[in-house]
Amino acid sequence: MPELSETVRVRVRFSEVDALQIVWHGNYVRYLEDAREAFGRRYGLEYMHIFESGYFAPMFDMQMRYHHTATVDDELLVKITYRPARGARVVFDYEVTREKDGLLILTASSTQLFTTREGEFEPSCPPFYEEWKRRNGIVL
Amino acid sequence: MPELSETVRVRVRFSEVDALQIVWHGNYVRYLEDAREAFGRRYGLEYMHIFESGYFAPMFDMQMRYHHTATVDDELLVKITYRPARGARVVFDYEVTREKDGLLILTASSTQLFTTREGEFEPSCPPFYEEWKRRNGIVL
Amino acid sequence: MPELSETVRVRVRFSEVDALQIVWHGNYVRYLEDAREAFGRRYGLEYMHIFESGYFAPMFDMQMRYHHTATVDDELLVKITYRPARGARVVFDYEVTREKDGLLILTASSTQLFTTREGEFEPSCPPFYEEWKRRNGIVL
Amino acid sequence: MPELSETVRVRVRFSEVDALQIVWHGNYVRYLEDAREAFGRRYGLEYMHIFESGYFAPMFDMQMRYHHTATVDDELLVKITYRPARGARVVFDYEVTREKDGLLILTASSTQLFTTREGEFEPSCPPFYEEWKRRNGIVL
Repeated sequence: MPELSETVRVRVRFSEVDALQIVWHGNYVRYLEDAREAFGRRYGLEYMHIFESGYFAPMFDMQMRYHHTATVDDELLVKITYRPARGARVVFDYEVTREKDGLLILTASSTQLFTTREGEFEPSCPPFYEEWKRRNGIVL
Repeated sequence: MPELSETVRVRVRFSEVDALQIVWHGNYVRYLEDAREAFGRRYGLEYMHIFESGYFAPMFDMQMRYHHTATVDDELLVKITYRPARGARVVFDYEVTREKDGLLILTASSTQLFTTREGEFEPSCPPFYEEWKRRNGIVL
Repeated sequence: MPELSETVRVRVRFSEVDALQIVWHGNYVRYLEDAREAFGRRYGLEYMHIFESGYFAPMFDMQMRYHHTATVDDELLVKITYRPARGARVVFDYEVTREKDGLLILTASSTQLFTTREGEFEPSCPPFYEEWKRRNGIVL
Repeated sequence: MPELSETVRVRVRFSEVDALQIVWHGNYVRYLEDAREAFGRRYGLEYMHIFESGYFAPMFDMQMRYHHTATVDDELLVKITYRPARGARVVFDYEVTREKDGLLILTASSTQLFTTREGEFEPSCPPFYEEWKRRNGIVL
């Protein structure tokens, strides 16, 4: 099965570090989202495409493990990889490294489920997502 | 004319100060919004009420003057005062002080205009806002 | 062993919901921090106390499970509970519920480790933390 | 006198738009900071350089005028221009436009003053800043 992944570069903003001069831990959620949006644009799985197909894909689970700290002006590489999973779930793994030396900063994973536009949980795989998996060679 | 005002207390969060240990200047926009929402609840001018009347009230102009810095765990009082103004505008003045000693931290003002739900600029005063002014004794 | 816990109330701000009108998933990190800071104030485990004892307590692991969505003006209760754990770790569990009906919104947990002020990882339990545990009846 | 300016491109993130699907007005402060940091890197006026010279340059005044709204995935160009001003002030003007069609989104200006590291206001022009002006052909 092909590995679907994308990498984005983010530069740590002054306003993203805290009083200890390190990136405030909550800001990584934003970096992960940057990567997820870039993945969506590359592979045709954008929020808007999901929405136009009649669904939302709200976050269901998120886990982050902080390995090293990062600070102002650090250039970080955020790699996102699609993890094939059965059923109506979108699962991603993430790895954030410091560009200049490859230091591992953060690993993370996220799981999104589907709801209809009315907010009802959708337990079976939406047709557009089945089609997306097929198109990208995801077989389970 | 009556002065319409409201005051909210905010405690500076750890994640709101920057590497210099002072509140990052952009976070005051959030504090001002806290005050504006509390004003809306008190005087019946909430976002949702405006929306249900068929309008949006996007920000048009915002000015902030920083007098002193604030730091983690400071308790701040954010006072918002309605400034009567002709036409289809909602203008507020703000004053942020440190609760324990009254030190002036920030003064600000904001102006919102109206658009229809389709995003068209609305140059004349929406009926619901005329009614709101009348009900609150605002005569111009 | 006593259960050490604290609860804070947060009102969802307009700026905290996303285009789908639900709280953006990253904002819960902030709510959890609110609770952690309140816990620190109540039980004497504030950032500043840790810092003055010669340590930092950076985030090492964070997990969040999203059960239901919340929206603008929802009043949420964020309960934080100290989870006794061996060694040089500070572990908390969290539960976010909607105040008006008790609906479960989010469960989470976080683990912080200790570093010296120079950023060196501290594998053994800092004296101030041993003392804190003893004072609060935490025996392991 | 030469015009000192820099332009950065920002893509509007999903988490930066509000319930009305437009960029939340407070997020522009962040975009402006992105431009200011890029300007600092290009012309040697970074936060760290100022800090190492013995000073801070906290925000003193900020004004923003919102001309049009922007939405998810819009690519915005943020142009920052140094405005020569007498004395111990750093003044910038900003213009945010939508890249695809040049639509004017926001104009803004900011003024920073200097303080010593102890937080004392510095009314006269710091030597490093005089030198910076000279090096960049700023004569007043």
